[in-house]
Amino acid sequence: MKDFERPDKLREECGVFGILSKNNHDVSRLTYYALYALQHRGQESCGIAVNKGGDITHHKAMGLVPEVFSGKVLNELNGKSAIGHVRYSTTGASLIENAQPLVIKYKDGKMALAHNGNLVNASAIREKLEENGAIFQSTIDSEVIANLISRYRGHNDSIEEAIAQMMKDVKGSYALVILTPNKLLGIRDPLGIRPLCIGMLDDSYVLASETCALDAIGANFIRDVEPGEIVIISDDGINSIKTEMEKESKLCIFEHIYFARPDSYIDGASVYRARFEAGRLLAIENPVDADLVIGVPDSGITAALGYSEESGIPYAQGFIKNRYVGRTFIQPDQGKREIGVRIKLNAMRNAIEGKRVIMVDDSIVRGTTSKRIVQLLRDAGATEVHLKISSPPVKYSCYFGIDTPSRKHLTAACHTVEEIKDMIGADSLSYLSIDGLVRTPIGSKLGFCKACFDGNYPMEVPAEGNKYACDGFNKE
Amino acid sequence: MKDFERPDKLREECGVFGILSKNNHDVSRLTYYALYALQHRGQESCGIAVNKGGDITHHKAMGLVPEVFSGKVLNELNGKSAIGHVRYSTTGASLIENAQPLVIKYKDGKMALAHNGNLVNASAIREKLEENGAIFQSTIDSEVIANLISRYRGHNDSIEEAIAQMMKDVKGSYALVILTPNKLLGIRDPLGIRPLCIGMLDDSYVLASETCALDAIGANFIRDVEPGEIVIISDDGINSIKTEMEKESKLCIFEHIYFARPDSYIDGASVYRARFEAGRLLAIENPVDADLVIGVPDSGITAALGYSEESGIPYAQGFIKNRYVGRTFIQPDQGKREIGVRIKLNAMRNAIEGKRVIMVDDSIVRGTTSKRIVQLLRDAGATEVHLKISSPPVKYSCYFGIDTPSRKHLTAACHTVEEIKDMIGADSLSYLSIDGLVRTPIGSKLGFCKACFDGNYPMEVPAEGNKYACDGFNKE
Amino acid sequence: MKDFERPDKLREECGVFGILSKNNHDVSRLTYYALYALQHRGQESCGIAVNKGGDITHHKAMGLVPEVFSGKVLNELNGKSAIGHVRYSTTGASLIENAQPLVIKYKDGKMALAHNGNLVNASAIREKLEENGAIFQSTIDSEVIANLISRYRGHNDSIEEAIAQMMKDVKGSYALVILTPNKLLGIRDPLGIRPLCIGMLDDSYVLASETCALDAIGANFIRDVEPGEIVIISDDGINSIKTEMEKESKLCIFEHIYFARPDSYIDGASVYRARFEAGRLLAIENPVDADLVIGVPDSGITAALGYSEESGIPYAQGFIKNRYVGRTFIQPDQGKREIGVRIKLNAMRNAIEGKRVIMVDDSIVRGTTSKRIVQLLRDAGATEVHLKISSPPVKYSCYFGIDTPSRKHLTAACHTVEEIKDMIGADSLSYLSIDGLVRTPIGSKLGFCKACFDGNYPMEVPAEGNKYACDGFNKE
Amino acid sequence: MKDFERPDKLREECGVFGILSKNNHDVSRLTYYALYALQHRGQESCGIAVNKGGDITHHKAMGLVPEVFSGKVLNELNGKSAIGHVRYSTTGASLIENAQPLVIKYKDGKMALAHNGNLVNASAIREKLEENGAIFQSTIDSEVIANLISRYRGHNDSIEEAIAQMMKDVKGSYALVILTPNKLLGIRDPLGIRPLCIGMLDDSYVLASETCALDAIGANFIRDVEPGEIVIISDDGINSIKTEMEKESKLCIFEHIYFARPDSYIDGASVYRARFEAGRLLAIENPVDADLVIGVPDSGITAALGYSEESGIPYAQGFIKNRYVGRTFIQPDQGKREIGVRIKLNAMRNAIEGKRVIMVDDSIVRGTTSKRIVQLLRDAGATEVHLKISSPPVKYSCYFGIDTPSRKHLTAACHTVEEIKDMIGADSLSYLSIDGLVRTPIGSKLGFCKACFDGNYPMEVPAEGNKYACDGFNKE
Repeated sequence: MKDFERPDKLREECGVFGILSKNNHDVSRLTYYALYALQHRGQESCGIAVNKGGDITHHKAMGLVPEVFSGKVLNELNGKSAIGHVRYSTTGASLIENAQPLVIKYKDGKMALAHNGNLVNASAIREKLEENGAIFQSTIDSEVIANLISRYRGHNDSIEEAIAQMMKDVKGSYALVILTPNKLLGIRDPLGIRPLCIGMLDDSYVLASETCALDAIGANFIRDVEPGEIVIISDDGINSIKTEMEKESKLCIFEHIYFARPDSYIDGASVYRARFEAGRLLAIENPVDADLVIGVPDSGITAALGYSEESGIPYAQGFIKNRYVGRTFIQPDQGKREIGVRIKLNAMRNAIEGKRVIMVDDSIVRGTTSKRIVQLLRDAGATEVHLKISSPPVKYSCYFGIDTPSRKHLTAACHTVEEIKDMIGADSLSYLSIDGLVRTPIGSKLGFCKACFDGNYPMEVPAEGNKYACDGFNKE
Repeated sequence: MKDFERPDKLREECGVFGILSKNNHDVSRLTYYALYALQHRGQESCGIAVNKGGDITHHKAMGLVPEVFSGKVLNELNGKSAIGHVRYSTTGASLIENAQPLVIKYKDGKMALAHNGNLVNASAIREKLEENGAIFQSTIDSEVIANLISRYRGHNDSIEEAIAQMMKDVKGSYALVILTPNKLLGIRDPLGIRPLCIGMLDDSYVLASETCALDAIGANFIRDVEPGEIVIISDDGINSIKTEMEKESKLCIFEHIYFARPDSYIDGASVYRARFEAGRLLAIENPVDADLVIGVPDSGITAALGYSEESGIPYAQGFIKNRYVGRTFIQPDQGKREIGVRIKLNAMRNAIEGKRVIMVDDSIVRGTTSKRIVQLLRDAGATEVHLKISSPPVKYSCYFGIDTPSRKHLTAACHTVEEIKDMIGADSLSYLSIDGLVRTPIGSKLGFCKACFDGNYPMEVPAEGNKYACDGFNKE
Repeated sequence: MKDFERPDKLREECGVFGILSKNNHDVSRLTYYALYALQHRGQESCGIAVNKGGDITHHKAMGLVPEVFSGKVLNELNGKSAIGHVRYSTTGASLIENAQPLVIKYKDGKMALAHNGNLVNASAIREKLEENGAIFQSTIDSEVIANLISRYRGHNDSIEEAIAQMMKDVKGSYALVILTPNKLLGIRDPLGIRPLCIGMLDDSYVLASETCALDAIGANFIRDVEPGEIVIISDDGINSIKTEMEKESKLCIFEHIYFARPDSYIDGASVYRARFEAGRLLAIENPVDADLVIGVPDSGITAALGYSEESGIPYAQGFIKNRYVGRTFIQPDQGKREIGVRIKLNAMRNAIEGKRVIMVDDSIVRGTTSKRIVQLLRDAGATEVHLKISSPPVKYSCYFGIDTPSRKHLTAACHTVEEIKDMIGADSLSYLSIDGLVRTPIGSKLGFCKACFDGNYPMEVPAEGNKYACDGFNKE
Repeated sequence: MKDFERPDKLREECGVFGILSKNNHDVSRLTYYALYALQHRGQESCGIAVNKGGDITHHKAMGLVPEVFSGKVLNELNGKSAIGHVRYSTTGASLIENAQPLVIKYKDGKMALAHNGNLVNASAIREKLEENGAIFQSTIDSEVIANLISRYRGHNDSIEEAIAQMMKDVKGSYALVILTPNKLLGIRDPLGIRPLCIGMLDDSYVLASETCALDAIGANFIRDVEPGEIVIISDDGINSIKTEMEKESKLCIFEHIYFARPDSYIDGASVYRARFEAGRLLAIENPVDADLVIGVPDSGITAALGYSEESGIPYAQGFIKNRYVGRTFIQPDQGKREIGVRIKLNAMRNAIEGKRVIMVDDSIVRGTTSKRIVQLLRDAGATEVHLKISSPPVKYSCYFGIDTPSRKHLTAACHTVEEIKDMIGADSLSYLSIDGLVRTPIGSKLGFCKACFDGNYPMEVPAEGNKYACDGFNKE
């Protein structure tokens, strides 16, 4: 579960959900519960669109699920099928116009779309559409996708064919759910970069970014949507179109490292096991003598348990985290920033004092908070602090839906491990190797995109991203 | 100033405002003040779009101007040109999606539009655009207009030429303000059905639905925009394109009767004088012996003063109106509705008691509240109540931006004056004649649309509107 | 109806209401409606306390009646008797602690109090109570009164006797309503400085500061509470205790001049007639040749009509007032203050232009806004502006519940009429004489306190108030 | 950290904090941060009172710290000393009137009080005070205490002497902080039932319910306030009065079991160590063969780690808890309650499946949620579920500040362990023994009240509490 208070961590863009009920479940309320389970994928805005008798209405706003939806709003949203969306904006554009689902009217009636991912050629397509007179009211990819579908709809017999044609145009990552008066569609890009799975609850089919959303509403997991697949759900059941898929699939490995909830399964692999295994391999690759293993809450805990098991060094609760701190927390003045950290996270002096501590965290992006957390441990009496990161150094920006800072802010793009260790003030620092990393999601049916670690992007990406001047120097 | 509490009155759709400042006035704040002055033209939603250095940002929401705009929001909206809008929705679609200004990106950059009026062929144009793949996110005419301009922009050298081409397609009423990175445009339909005027404040040009908005910000009145004219304001000053105008212009006469603020001037005529004159003519056409003349607040006051002057019968304050009653007023239960009326409006017993009273109101649409108001006077001791209406009977629906109920709810479409008098419970009832009406806006430079009284629409209107079954019978 | 936008006018402290229903009317809702009708007497906070089966619950908050009460809150407040209060705070203490009704538990159970007026010896009594160990949680007089009643309750057989004993201690003005599990009590100070009247609605007795609250809920007026009277309402009907009354009563004359709603009757006199008569006498005392008579909205309108009738000079609407401007209005920056005035009030150019205008206002306290309003008329083309004030010059502070500024801010305490005229920029200025004033509330059964005009306070007042240094000089 | 979603757990009443800064720290902001750290002690209302130059102002409201305080409010609250309070109401009276601190004016000026605990003779004292004429505006004990101090202040030379006299009258538990214009006082009842400690930050002394509040603001721990001690903090430093203390102190043992934050130290003992030790002893007293040890988040985690260490059975993350679920969560309809549980808490299938699980929780009060959590584990594939409770069975109500349900709702008061096991559906159930319990807070300097387990109350308590009829039967 990700945190308001860690501005130095990566952020995912979105989570999506869809449901079609043959016999009229309360689909808006089920979508509401599912969005709660996906809230960690986006905390800026959320929305639900519902189809009732062919008309699609919706409600969306800036804020968390409990802030945006009241019982009154949910009651007004009733229908037989619905899609939902939670959003974290990767750009500055945290505007209500960009909240999803996007609901539009086109030649064939109404349609609602919700998208997780990022198109790398959205600008080029927008320009082409604008040349033909199209107007845009937001900066989200969903509007580009809706325009393409609308244009192709005229030349095709069904919306799924129009979607297949749209998929030939767009490049990038997308897990899409689309609601029409008669259908619920789920689409995953040909590389399968973003996750999407299918579940069933009584006579309702559901689509979700993660299986934890299925668990939340008591739905059974059926299978993952395949890369390049279009799933069509209607009262007649479930159908599928397999568009041309790439040779190798490329699930974003950061889903396993940090984004997804540990109780989710993605493409056949348990996120919990992947993190636990990462901790185990980290202990094998980077042993160190110490008294305790602790994890940085919440995302470092699972790997810390794995590290403890493998190393035989006891696991302890190193921190207590204040659950009441949210977005309205009033920051202390400059020069008292450490108060801000201590309120959110307090080191457990009685467990730590006089001990040599191994602290496990999932990743380092900017590294600004890591330094403060190490200091918390020293203030609580730790004699040594060894920082173990359960993923490799993040050196390259992501173009597929993760909000990576520009390369010059990626600590590992500009500094050696030794330099980072010194900056953070740890006694030692080690990362999991890339080789180790790809072994962690045991049983995964898909290959991975790990471009943020090795720069091998699965498709051409905008060039500017790789030119950069580091903050300070870069010896690697 | 119109009232939340008179659901039986007609409602206008919108008010628009625009400003371009050569040397950077605080345009968002001036727009905010102007919208206050236009608030009577729409109380459902409002918005401001601002151009700063070529980027157009905006803020809009459901609610009144003071509810939607805070000092913080205004400060963030600063720029060198801006447009604003207040909206009353004529249809059920009181949705945030339909709030204006509409801000879009198209081939030529960003554009914001705000519209007062109603297109009669919007559906037909939408269908044609959808055939070509366009998608729509709202039900407002502005989105249709923006699509047309965007499509025509490719074949024209300037936005004003694209607008001129758009004007050939659309039928209906429109007073439009459009904001681009370099220009502020004001457009009025070829019949001039909705008002729009030009003013100047230091080095800033402004556009407004009514002159009262100019007064509010201290701007000087320059002239009215002419029917069919496109006014182009930029740092280079003001230019104009005259598109083909209809032979005769057709300003909506209800602007003078009820919609506009009495301190406004429209097309050369003072609204105050028009209402005063209507009262005078009413006294000439329909004399009656009585002790007092009173007006129904607020819109009946001016005509009551005219009636008093002409008839020599003293004017008195007949009612006290509670200014604190707003939209959140909790209605009494059925059967105590008269409490609701009395809280909003109390008759001035001491002025009324034992008197024969002439009560002047501007119009009767449904007539439901009129009956209760007459009863208030009788309860306060009036011995006779003569109801004088300073406009003719409303018999036909409007298709040009006024929210008229369907004909079967128009009292005068279904009942004789005698019947209405009996229903309302007045001792006598008379209306101003159509002939009298057109003489009231003294000095007006334009002709009038008075179709709501005589059914002579200035263009073809949807046919269904005129088929109707009356509530009860219709002897006319 | 008083205005947020006239900070230069006097403010009253409070309005009170009470109801006891023998057969369970919806007393909280009726109180809610009544408070709407009394809202002009206080806009800072309001509250309702309800007795249900012997338990007294309440709801109060900062804000206007529609802001403080929702349907949900009212539904939870149901009971068989209730009191309500609207408050304008005369001191800086606009705190929720000071909102009324005050609800307390004491020896005899629960009790709720609401008070309009001001005690001149509250501090002295507080000190004495504190000497005996009492603690205070607010700065309102009601808490002093509650403490006294509680202390006297032990030595008396009934609450009314305890109240009578309390009345011997306190000096000042008070119209009080008190709710106990079995009774509703109304008390008026021995001089009758603040108004309080009794009404009846079916089987419910009601108490209210003004008769307009009776009208609002459809109650019939029974009689005014007499100075020094304690009215006791219970299921057994209505009883009364007459405590020792002063020889001469002293109703605050400003109730007739400005505070009360014109449709109210106070102590037998119509407020509307009093104002109309004041206008008539003003015309007799101070004739001037002019073309038009106008009133400053809203409080100057009635006197203007009287002036017009007496003088034969036609009455006209001089101004249009913007009803949407409220407390959240964002003021223009310094140097553009006139925009603020113009948005709230616009002069009716078409009525005014080229005319010699008599402008009637009810009073001048600070005079700051008067200057701007005169300027509005000149900007609208008035050739002469004669300011006529329908009350005498306000020269002395009030100690009985009116928020008068310190004497040095009372324009008339420091300046001659001629000086004020020059400061305001009027062509002439005249006030109604004190002699004229006391003749205006025709039929009043009580004498008046007019100390703000002549300094003859009806009891000893704190000395400091009369020492002052004027802003500038004082030649009178 | 306690949870909105566990209505079956015990609730503490309050947390208190105080600070006096010799050289003007920003005391309101420091209090705000400290209240964040104490938020787990009360989530219903909170408040801060600040002393600035002898005047005490305050802000309090219903809601969590981030809901009640904005930057604007904190800026207005500045001063040199302050107290703060978070409250959970044990009675139905969740009213704003009962929010603390209570701020009063009395003979000696202003005073603010904040109280954690419960007086058992408050009603009797109230009656006596009412006999003497006192009035009460709330139902909180602080108002009783303030009245006593005020009454005794007249006969004493200082407030601390008045407080000492008050302490002779009141019976029960209290950790009190009191703010006067010159002093900050901390008082702990003679049995030391509720905790209170002293810290120092630069030149500021602070008082807090728990040391975690000291950590949050970077203050150093000085010492605990002793049972029966009055600590007086002023610009002259810190002084102390030791009132007559009971022979044996009686800290509430539930502070260590559940209420306090694990990173706090109370009376010399680490809460973390106490819980860890409880887990260890539980493993010694109640060994069972299993594959995994898990804790119920958040309060069962520490004991689970202790159990794991002692037993050698590996610890695992058994659950993922949704941190976004708050008070506005919309509950599913009856019959889908299990959805509500699953959204808040999801079992980690991959860790659990096919495993024999020991689930450690801190206590069972009503037991309603325990049953659902056991079911979650079975649904996730656990083959055995052994429930281990790190405290003895709760059989008696608390009268000292903990919200225990009436005895008939205390599962263990009415049922044998075997019966409870069956009701919950666990394979086995064991509790820590009372003997084991008292050994857990290693190094504690105080004795404990463990009346909720053994019924040995440290003073006379109201009799009614112990008469009860169980829900169902009770064989013990």
